Amino acid sequence: MSTDELPRSGRPRVIVVGAGFAGLAAVRELRDADVDVLLLDRDPFNTFQPLLYQVATGGLNPGDITYSLRAFAARFPHARFRRATVTGVDTAQRRVRLDSGVEVGYDYLILCCGVVANYFGIPGAEENAWTIYSRRSAIAVRDRVLSNLESVAQGREGAVEPVVVVVGGGATGVEMAGALAELRNSGLPLAYPELDPRRARVVLVEMADTLLAPFHPTLRSYAARALRERGVDLRLGTAVRQVRPDSVVLSDGECLPSAVTVWATGVRACDQVAMWGLRQGPGGRIQVEADMRVVGQPDVFAVGDVAARGDDPLPQLAQPAIQGGRHAARQVRRLARGEPTEPFSYRDKGIMATIGRSDAVVQLPGRVRMRGFVAWVAWLGLHVLALMSNRNRLATMANLAVRYLTWKRTANVIVGDPP
Amino acid sequence: MSTDELPRSGRPRVIVVGAGFAGLAAVRELRDADVDVLLLDRDPFNTFQPLLYQVATGGLNPGDITYSLRAFAARFPHARFRRATVTGVDTAQRRVRLDSGVEVGYDYLILCCGVVANYFGIPGAEENAWTIYSRRSAIAVRDRVLSNLESVAQGREGAVEPVVVVVGGGATGVEMAGALAELRNSGLPLAYPELDPRRARVVLVEMADTLLAPFHPTLRSYAARALRERGVDLRLGTAVRQVRPDSVVLSDGECLPSAVTVWATGVRACDQVAMWGLRQGPGGRIQVEADMRVVGQPDVFAVGDVAARGDDPLPQLAQPAIQGGRHAARQVRRLARGEPTEPFSYRDKGIMATIGRSDAVVQLPGRVRMRGFVAWVAWLGLHVLALMSNRNRLATMANLAVRYLTWKRTANVIVGDPP
Repeated sequence: MSTDELPRSGRPRVIVVGAGFAGLAAVRELRDADVDVLLLDRDPFNTFQPLLYQVATGGLNPGDITYSLRAFAARFPHARFRRATVTGVDTAQRRVRLDSGVEVGYDYLILCCGVVANYFGIPGAEENAWTIYSRRSAIAVRDRVLSNLESVAQGREGAVEPVVVVVGGGATGVEMAGALAELRNSGLPLAYPELDPRRARVVLVEMADTLLAPFHPTLRSYAARALRERGVDLRLGTAVRQVRPDSVVLSDGECLPSAVTVWATGVRACDQVAMWGLRQGPGGRIQVEADMRVVGQPDVFAVGDVAARGDDPLPQLAQPAIQGGRHAARQVRRLARGEPTEPFSYRDKGIMATIGRSDAVVQLPGRVRMRGFVAWVAWLGLHVLALMSNRNRLATMANLAVRYLTWKRTANVIVGDPP
Repeated sequence: MSTDELPRSGRPRVIVVGAGFAGLAAVRELRDADVDVLLLDRDPFNTFQPLLYQVATGGLNPGDITYSLRAFAARFPHARFRRATVTGVDTAQRRVRLDSGVEVGYDYLILCCGVVANYFGIPGAEENAWTIYSRRSAIAVRDRVLSNLESVAQGREGAVEPVVVVVGGGATGVEMAGALAELRNSGLPLAYPELDPRRARVVLVEMADTLLAPFHPTLRSYAARALRERGVDLRLGTAVRQVRPDSVVLSDGECLPSAVTVWATGVRACDQVAMWGLRQGPGGRIQVEADMRVVGQPDVFAVGDVAARGDDPLPQLAQPAIQGGRHAARQVRRLARGEPTEPFSYRDKGIMATIGRSDAVVQLPGRVRMRGFVAWVAWLGLHVLALMSNRNRLATMANLAVRYLTWKRTANVIVGDPP
């Protein structure tokens, strides 16, 4: 064990663990505060998760939606980034231990390290299914999908039928299935003329009787209809019993062939959280008070997907994470000035899911509901605006525009590295 | 062994092996010809090799300079693409054997499968050095450079000093060293404030007494001066004796530490060419006649880097490859019409190398020489024009523009996947 050699300025030090929506919002909010900020993440980049399904289907480059955390930290005079995983939190001594063995002291700690896929103990799921929750796994899905199409097109022996099974009918599953259907309908016939397009299938399996549970019933059924029209084989009210390397066994006994199984059923707090000795609730989420401080910890905040308030667990979306990160940063400033904390009140800005090119569902507060092209324009505008705060904006917009304008002619504009 | 199941139209079949500059030019030239074209490549994408050094230094996304060959083939009604390596050529039966075991018949064969790095038998070079001749290896270099910087910045035990040694002072080595120097000078101090920038070094080792042998002496010395001004440690007249995992031993006995060694000393024909039973010359290049037909083979052409004419080996650059591919395609059309072939005459369009942002050397036919900003604008214009023929144009230009306009503020806009 070595201790931390970071320069000490005498200003309070705030450690932000996790550089997702919540972590970046917290660092931004502390921009003018008289504190030193140390941002930690296991990856050297921030990932714009809402567009990972585009990476997984070859529509965007990984670099279009990831952003160097060192470049981010360089924008703030008192912020530093360090690539690290937090292996321990000593709240008595106010120190965190990093995977390198180094210990770093803090005055205030903001935990927002996000979540990982929840496999709910389904046999074979963790081993054989792929998630699209990280840049690395989205790239792996893309390369597997493309590599499977190549093998099938060449008639290679042992090639699994080109079927992608998406498990989970939430926003992630719907967006992934929609993008895959588009790839199949528009790209496949051009790029793989030797392949009978009817062989390529997209199956979406959802345990509940509807897709997109948090949405209004009219939008749920609209999404189901829109996916079916695009040729997605929807299996509602169906659970997954087992995932095998090249098939998925359903609760009705059917064994679906599956070249690539995408797991999108939900999330849970990542494993290291359990080592921190903080109070955890359902899904491993860290229990917080009304002001987003961890139960019993006056200097530690938890926000974003990893945190849950007893009475009101907050949805695991970008908005609660951004608002939570900002709130935690504001409370740190208040505490540093000797002021009491304020409770966090989440301002619902609505939810949205895209189904495909020119099609989406959007539900805003006040019973405003949109679907189809109008909803898609709203979805696109919001995502482009969000990306604008990163430096990737020009290239990403250009890629999206190229894809939109030339899709029919070009199919896979962006290619992967199939093994 | 299975035989080929591709549909036969009764039209002559042309097989193009390798989808680099020469292969794509040949397929384009055959657009209106009454032939079926089968394009083969070991990768499912074409790579715009002249910008691979940008990928290797994190300036461009891999997807910005690679282009789906299936999307390419879809633009031509009589062209198909198949991902394959050619393991054998049976010129008597006019068939090629693919790595899948399939054999495919041809009427005309155009070989343009390019080259691989030549290690000249230097001990340890193949095992411990990295090339930037393919998308995969450029990504590996990028991820190693970034990962080394992370380790050093964190003071991890066993981290090798952040020194990159580039071996070879041709255009590839000069461009790579220039881009690395820029990364060090502009990006490093911002992105890695905890790292003393003097520790990060770029060394360029060249056996000859000058850089850029094919250029006029004034441009050679200009390039050397420009690199030195950017802080590149130039070792001219120095050979590499051995490459170790974290150092390079020079001919003067010095052992340079090296976190990443980039091998850019030259190329030779790839290994499978030796299995084809065709006549090979220096560097394994296939010997061709004046009309670019392989010596003794009336139906087989070889063009691009892999081909050499006895008297005039042609430079291994994009232009001879493009012109050669186009020429071979024209000769196929002539042969199919029963006309005799024509000799290939290479039209020199000049050579260029970029040294860094706003700096390059350009040498055009007719003693036209440019250097500095003017040369860089010419370089940029030409590369943007060349990329325009692909679909990646918008995104790549946007990425280049972002990088140019915001470099000082953002450092590594695009990040890799360090292990």
